[in-house]
Amino acid sequence: MDVAIIMGSDSDWDVMKKAVELLKQFEINFEVTVASAHRTPYKVQEFVKSCDAQNVKIFIAAAGCAAHLAGVIASYTTKPVIGVPIASEPLKGWDSLLSTVQMPPGVPVATMAINGAKNAAIFAAQVIALSNADVKQKLDNYRKDMAAEVERKAEKIIG
Amino acid sequence: MDVAIIMGSDSDWDVMKKAVELLKQFEINFEVTVASAHRTPYKVQEFVKSCDAQNVKIFIAAAGCAAHLAGVIASYTTKPVIGVPIASEPLKGWDSLLSTVQMPPGVPVATMAINGAKNAAIFAAQVIALSNADVKQKLDNYRKDMAAEVERKAEKIIG
Amino acid sequence: MDVAIIMGSDSDWDVMKKAVELLKQFEINFEVTVASAHRTPYKVQEFVKSCDAQNVKIFIAAAGCAAHLAGVIASYTTKPVIGVPIASEPLKGWDSLLSTVQMPPGVPVATMAINGAKNAAIFAAQVIALSNADVKQKLDNYRKDMAAEVERKAEKIIG
Amino acid sequence: MDVAIIMGSDSDWDVMKKAVELLKQFEINFEVTVASAHRTPYKVQEFVKSCDAQNVKIFIAAAGCAAHLAGVIASYTTKPVIGVPIASEPLKGWDSLLSTVQMPPGVPVATMAINGAKNAAIFAAQVIALSNADVKQKLDNYRKDMAAEVERKAEKIIG
Amino acid sequence: MDVAIIMGSDSDWDVMKKAVELLKQFEINFEVTVASAHRTPYKVQEFVKSCDAQNVKIFIAAAGCAAHLAGVIASYTTKPVIGVPIASEPLKGWDSLLSTVQMPPGVPVATMAINGAKNAAIFAAQVIALSNADVKQKLDNYRKDMAAEVERKAEKIIG
Amino acid sequence: MDVAIIMGSDSDWDVMKKAVELLKQFEINFEVTVASAHRTPYKVQEFVKSCDAQNVKIFIAAAGCAAHLAGVIASYTTKPVIGVPIASEPLKGWDSLLSTVQMPPGVPVATMAINGAKNAAIFAAQVIALSNADVKQKLDNYRKDMAAEVERKAEKIIG
Amino acid sequence: MDVAIIMGSDSDWDVMKKAVELLKQFEINFEVTVASAHRTPYKVQEFVKSCDAQNVKIFIAAAGCAAHLAGVIASYTTKPVIGVPIASEPLKGWDSLLSTVQMPPGVPVATMAINGAKNAAIFAAQVIALSNADVKQKLDNYRKDMAAEVERKAEKIIG
Amino acid sequence: MDVAIIMGSDSDWDVMKKAVELLKQFEINFEVTVASAHRTPYKVQEFVKSCDAQNVKIFIAAAGCAAHLAGVIASYTTKPVIGVPIASEPLKGWDSLLSTVQMPPGVPVATMAINGAKNAAIFAAQVIALSNADVKQKLDNYRKDMAAEVERKAEKIIG
Repeated sequence: MDVAIIMGSDSDWDVMKKAVELLKQFEINFEVTVASAHRTPYKVQEFVKSCDAQNVKIFIAAAGCAAHLAGVIASYTTKPVIGVPIASEPLKGWDSLLSTVQMPPGVPVATMAINGAKNAAIFAAQVIALSNADVKQKLDNYRKDMAAEVERKAEKIIG
Repeated sequence: MDVAIIMGSDSDWDVMKKAVELLKQFEINFEVTVASAHRTPYKVQEFVKSCDAQNVKIFIAAAGCAAHLAGVIASYTTKPVIGVPIASEPLKGWDSLLSTVQMPPGVPVATMAINGAKNAAIFAAQVIALSNADVKQKLDNYRKDMAAEVERKAEKIIG
Repeated sequence: MDVAIIMGSDSDWDVMKKAVELLKQFEINFEVTVASAHRTPYKVQEFVKSCDAQNVKIFIAAAGCAAHLAGVIASYTTKPVIGVPIASEPLKGWDSLLSTVQMPPGVPVATMAINGAKNAAIFAAQVIALSNADVKQKLDNYRKDMAAEVERKAEKIIG
Repeated sequence: MDVAIIMGSDSDWDVMKKAVELLKQFEINFEVTVASAHRTPYKVQEFVKSCDAQNVKIFIAAAGCAAHLAGVIASYTTKPVIGVPIASEPLKGWDSLLSTVQMPPGVPVATMAINGAKNAAIFAAQVIALSNADVKQKLDNYRKDMAAEVERKAEKIIG
Repeated sequence: MDVAIIMGSDSDWDVMKKAVELLKQFEINFEVTVASAHRTPYKVQEFVKSCDAQNVKIFIAAAGCAAHLAGVIASYTTKPVIGVPIASEPLKGWDSLLSTVQMPPGVPVATMAINGAKNAAIFAAQVIALSNADVKQKLDNYRKDMAAEVERKAEKIIG
Repeated sequence: MDVAIIMGSDSDWDVMKKAVELLKQFEINFEVTVASAHRTPYKVQEFVKSCDAQNVKIFIAAAGCAAHLAGVIASYTTKPVIGVPIASEPLKGWDSLLSTVQMPPGVPVATMAINGAKNAAIFAAQVIALSNADVKQKLDNYRKDMAAEVERKAEKIIG
Repeated sequence: MDVAIIMGSDSDWDVMKKAVELLKQFEINFEVTVASAHRTPYKVQEFVKSCDAQNVKIFIAAAGCAAHLAGVIASYTTKPVIGVPIASEPLKGWDSLLSTVQMPPGVPVATMAINGAKNAAIFAAQVIALSNADVKQKLDNYRKDMAAEVERKAEKIIG
Repeated sequence: MDVAIIMGSDSDWDVMKKAVELLKQFEINFEVTVASAHRTPYKVQEFVKSCDAQNVKIFIAAAGCAAHLAGVIASYTTKPVIGVPIASEPLKGWDSLLSTVQMPPGVPVATMAINGAKNAAIFAAQVIALSNADVKQKLDNYRKDMAAEVERKAEKIIG
């Protein structure tokens, strides 16, 4: 298994399924679960250790409000941890963003944009691509497809 | 032991020693330690469990930046947890405040003002005073002394 | 009576009824009223004194905008006061949060998340549980039930 | 007595003495005191009532952090209340401003800029000038002097 | 004429008609117009001068975004000017509030809450009441009615 | 005269002299004055009209706090107006930025970064360069010099 | 061709078509395209160079979130660049505004209000009008029509 | 070469040298340069391509204000890019943070805390450690040393 995705709440699924779709598209193995830093702290701890034992390469954590999940995961492993702040109400993700990104020296969380599920998957793929030429190729193609799509949209408006 | 004070960093001591001074003044037993939610997660976990075993009544947690310490403590105990967001640079505590106060439903952290060490001690004393008439008396006197001090300062300016 | 809940406006009821439901579930005695720090200052003052006379243990105050209610209550009592900032329009609760949490040294308000009604009830229960084993048991069960619910939700998504 | 100035803390004096200097310059009678909405709530209440009995025309309240003072005064009187949010640390007055200005419908506070002591005095004078031709003349002269001073400064730079 | 209300845009009318209703209820004479600080600067200037000539006592200015209207009016008169920041999109009134309240020393604008139309009318009435016993009586009754309404709402919830 | 620079206060000079130095370097004619939108509204109006009569091509306005100066100038002319928000205390320019940039449809202000005096001069030069090949050449050289300076600094660090 | 409009995404079109309508009304030649600073960086570079070769006078760039488009264009040309921050979700354009306006010394972007498409077109016209009397006349008429429209709206409300 | 560090300005060196020190400590090969997204866009482009040709594994980009550097680098490569927002004046890094982290879908930047140079180095090491057991060991030791240092500091305060 290459990537472990952990969501703090099942309500994060609507956002995070876009990460899952991309990982499938890149043919990267992953596991996904729901585990809350505050409501199920022992499950988070065990899940991280179990992932480490299975040689998971990278973690993706999504959480809202006082979003501690990514930071807590990072405290249990020295594997790379990607954080996705969720745009929770009423503060629109300001709290989630600051809680995720402002980690103290020593324990990094690689933070994506608020609701940046797609970019979490792409960044995970970029890390995996360092030792996997297939994924590298898929990423380069994805980049080209994006550029082509921008062109098509430009033509629609100009046309 | 009645109160356990945990700071995420020894640099929080300048702020938090004001809480210690007040607890001494109220003659409340306490313990103080430094334990980081991110750098020493196991120590935090063990310390909370050890405090619970010693019948600690209330926790005070101080941390800055992505301030997860109070929330992590609250995830390990159903005892009351007070959070003191530290005014860390460069965001002046906006990150610490939101990371501490915006806890999801189920796991509360009673949040004080940024750098509100004194109020953390007073609030802990207010909880303890519910079953301790001596502390209640000391709190009422403290309140009266504050009012008197305001009067003295008013006179200086008017005088 | 153990808990007194005061709302600054009847429009806060939609949020605060979740606190009432939890207090009932924990079998904690409470009273609830509407009293505005600005429109009915004398009622607030009298209500707090009457609650103090009835040995209320803890106050929960909910208010929005320039949310002074919790602070005003705290100025009349040395009992613990919990503040719930309401997510009032148009500032989404930024004003309510800062008005509630940034109390000056000497008069604490234990602030919950914006709209954090449930956590106000749980925190009140945590304080009461210090001298009430039944409530302590209910809190521990509530915590376990939450963890189990997270598991069920995780299974739905993984399944 | 025409104007009553109330500061929540003696540390507000450095800012508010500029209001006092202007009121003297406009030859407007005033009284100044220190009274805290949170630490001396009864004094605030009595002071407002005593001022009302002495036909005070307008109140100026200065406070920082969770700045409830102006709102509390406004809850006790239907006289005009001017609020001066103080630029308290660490939030630079964001908390003071929102706590002062975001009053709910029914109980207004006329809010000045953060640390806007001078403007509080000028606005009070503008209200008094409605029935006092001397003060009106002084205000008009003050305005002219300001314009002339801007000219002098422009000349220095251009010169 | 006692009060002049100026809106920067006709879209502010939905908010400001609440001020008009209250002024009618208090039997205060007023005039209302639309004049933009940016699109019709000469009209604003002439309107303020014409109001001054008619002995208008107080101005109420409502505007959104870079809300300069109240400040521009204040630059043309030494009469009291009340500012109502409008909750314009997309910044919800943060821009309107800061543009209205943060006036430099010398030219005050008495700022109400965002969308605080009612309080603008009440504050204008409070100023007028200083020399008008009828309006003073109406304000005191309005305050009492508000308190009674809070009571009725409290009973509905408790009942 | 090509460029008119107006500062709301002589205290803005420390920032704005950098714009003056650059205009001199680009050999662009300019005039500089101090005129306050709030304290000297008639001077602002007359100055803008006088500049228009002298075929000034572009205005640069610098102001802090509730920074209305650029918007007021833009209301009197259809010439391009550049706004420089000054980083005034205590809000560090958040108020200046929003007051300058959030102009309503119809009356634009081309806003630079907070304290962006240099960029105001460069942007004015870019506009003038559209019909002045000498200025265009100077701008292109300035850009090249900047790039070379970055190289020199890179070498110092790498070296 | 006088003006080149570049949007970072086709979803910006709903906002930016208002700029296009105004440029048509002012009879100014323009081209519009979609090109993303991040997804099609080479297209942006080529488009800017091609526009420069065609003597485009001014660029208008619209983008949301981490809105780098205007800054990237400005890095490739010394022609004037106007930036329109788009009010993207969930941060309502706070990110777009700061990413667009806070350019470092040397490379200015003339920033409009969030979603300020109309003002971008008007400002471009103001620059072009410096050497085009027809456009100048159209701008002056547009300003007069706006003032007349404000009058009509005022009459509707007063009437 | 494993890591390429790019700073937008030589003034970022004081912050970023901490990243350099850590990479040395982890015995990771790196190159460091100064290249500005706005002042030297072609150098950035060439540097990224040259790094890609040299099989650089990961980029670290540090920039302040409208911090486009990391995003621009990410637009030229599908290698992982880490962004370090610098706490530039006067907005303390709010602008740098949002400009760096709020990347649109498709082009991720792994954002660290404001001034988070150390964590950028550690995160880069975590990525490299996925295929380098020596670095993995050094990271695990670094984590243990941090925990031990927290313990020593705790003892000083308790002792």
